[in-house]
Amino acid sequence: MLASTVIPAKDADVGSVGRTVISVDAMGGDRGPAAVVAGCARFARSVDGIGFILHGPKDELERLVSRRKPLSGLCRIRHSDRTVTMDAKPSHVMRNGKNTSMWSAIDSVRNGEAEVCVSCGNTGALMAISMMRLRKLDGINRPAIACLWPRRDKEGFNIMLDVGADIRADEDDLLQFALMGTSYARNGLDLARPRVGLLNVGTEEHKGRAELKSANDLIAAAAPAGDFEYIGFIEGSDIPSAHVDVIVTDGFTGNIALKTAEGTAEQIREFLKSAFAATPLSRIAALIAYTSLNRLSKRIDPRRVNGGVFLGLNGTVVKSHGGADAKGTEAAVKLAFDLARSRFSQRIAARVASATIARQDAVKGQPGNGTTQ
Amino acid sequence: MLASTVIPAKDADVGSVGRTVISVDAMGGDRGPAAVVAGCARFARSVDGIGFILHGPKDELERLVSRRKPLSGLCRIRHSDRTVTMDAKPSHVMRNGKNTSMWSAIDSVRNGEAEVCVSCGNTGALMAISMMRLRKLDGINRPAIACLWPRRDKEGFNIMLDVGADIRADEDDLLQFALMGTSYARNGLDLARPRVGLLNVGTEEHKGRAELKSANDLIAAAAPAGDFEYIGFIEGSDIPSAHVDVIVTDGFTGNIALKTAEGTAEQIREFLKSAFAATPLSRIAALIAYTSLNRLSKRIDPRRVNGGVFLGLNGTVVKSHGGADAKGTEAAVKLAFDLARSRFSQRIAARVASATIARQDAVKGQPGNGTTQ
Repeated sequence: MLASTVIPAKDADVGSVGRTVISVDAMGGDRGPAAVVAGCARFARSVDGIGFILHGPKDELERLVSRRKPLSGLCRIRHSDRTVTMDAKPSHVMRNGKNTSMWSAIDSVRNGEAEVCVSCGNTGALMAISMMRLRKLDGINRPAIACLWPRRDKEGFNIMLDVGADIRADEDDLLQFALMGTSYARNGLDLARPRVGLLNVGTEEHKGRAELKSANDLIAAAAPAGDFEYIGFIEGSDIPSAHVDVIVTDGFTGNIALKTAEGTAEQIREFLKSAFAATPLSRIAALIAYTSLNRLSKRIDPRRVNGGVFLGLNGTVVKSHGGADAKGTEAAVKLAFDLARSRFSQRIAARVASATIARQDAVKGQPGNGTTQ
Repeated sequence: MLASTVIPAKDADVGSVGRTVISVDAMGGDRGPAAVVAGCARFARSVDGIGFILHGPKDELERLVSRRKPLSGLCRIRHSDRTVTMDAKPSHVMRNGKNTSMWSAIDSVRNGEAEVCVSCGNTGALMAISMMRLRKLDGINRPAIACLWPRRDKEGFNIMLDVGADIRADEDDLLQFALMGTSYARNGLDLARPRVGLLNVGTEEHKGRAELKSANDLIAAAAPAGDFEYIGFIEGSDIPSAHVDVIVTDGFTGNIALKTAEGTAEQIREFLKSAFAATPLSRIAALIAYTSLNRLSKRIDPRRVNGGVFLGLNGTVVKSHGGADAKGTEAAVKLAFDLARSRFSQRIAARVASATIARQDAVKGQPGNGTTQ
């Protein structure tokens, strides 16, 4: 499953050996499969060596693909006529979701046909099926969803995890999030020595919950061997800071922070719009300032950073936003392609394995003091 | 202590009987006592019937007050030459803070000289001294800090609590936060029947931590008697929503959400500034759009909403931002004055007492089912 994925030569539909293949769940998004196929086509125009396996109703997908020239010869279609709805309960989908496009898309990663899966469907169901079909990596207790967060003072992103795979995390989970986030920063953002911060209600060492104080010690102790820099506790206002690359938190807190930031950005966009619509003069100013406002709106456009990545499984899954349009899907597919190209799944597995061995050695070597090594 | 506060007639310095007196810790802010005194003066210009007790170094405060005409005859000064620093540990301040301006400012509420205390000092120390000197209200387990949050679609605010008095809250605490927040919304925002939401990672009833599910039941059951509307779970993106007035959460989550929103707003302000500074044309547009941009910046100006309120104590304490300037202090003093005028401390005590009695009656009446009444 972890071998580099190539399309068998006999499948003339998808193209030559050596392509990086992305498995795409075309269903379940608010805008339907047309937006998903259009997003794949946008990205296919800009790269060589990509192939897609699209999952959904065969006739509809064939019609959509045939209209997109950049996709010609790059897509294989896997028929499924069932879709996981946005309100489906994960437990129900685990029992009854077998013939859905989401299940089928994840199975393409499971059986080695594709390197990474992309879906804009129901997050809870996607995580549940991913856990069941791909299984957790050896040494990982709790998988996590990592998101990209626009950085404050330059064009770039920070990574935050977990933003909602689970609602809790103990100190060992938080350490694993630090290790997985570091690996994502290396392979997804090309950072040699990522800086890791732990989200808390203050930066002083005595603040916060007990598990955060323990995690603070564990992550600090793991930094030298893990080749990352640990900067200690950070606060909510530091999430977009340029002084940190990877922000570690539990899935409850991460989800609240992410949605609060989205709500705030949306609110300010609305305020800005109404400020410029208020008077004739301000409307003229808005016309003149069109390019500037456009530049701003690009920087805070959530579509540019679309793609939560599920970490800690045998295979990588990119969760695209439920409301993603073609541009949003393009961003998610680009992220999936970059991670597949860097052989991210294999690297993160190796990283977690070596940390687990180091931890076990430390426990063996210093029996009384093992858990904080 | 809860009687309406008047200045004794013998104190010619402060003025006539019947004034609403605010106790102000003039020290501990980043900008020193000059900004605090200037803020008091700004507010004193706009109202009748206010008096101040200012706490800090006598000579310095007398000099500052003498320069501000609107304060003439309205201030009594309480000398203290010790200041609680921003990095002081609450436990240390509780043992050694007796002669500080912060301690003295809270004691003016304790001994009934003033109705409400305002301080821009260290939050943890202020909460610790407030807890020790004012004591918790009967029936309250965990006091909370409530903040005002700019609302999305009109000029107005939502209330969120707790934003950092404590790092945890169980289901009973969350119910008390709902009751205290409702009382604050009635007396501070003049809402007859506030709508209460409980912050969670999703709006479905099966989502979130166990204590949130229990709190969901408790708050729903308390709504009819409490004369508020309970709208159920809300997400981070709903905090500025116009469909809710009071957002209930634990102090850890509330603090992260508040600081994340502050960080996001600051980040977008910077992006906006750099977008308008990018080209000569955009700089001209910025000049023409000056009024519009100013209008926007007023709406997201944190100084307008300065003032976290400590709820659940025998007396009300308003925490002003550490970096507050004169305008920020003015907003905090205005909030303190409004709450004092509405006799908020007395009302919230009555509200919590009647809820406690109702709860005890319910437990007595239905022994097997008491805790969810």
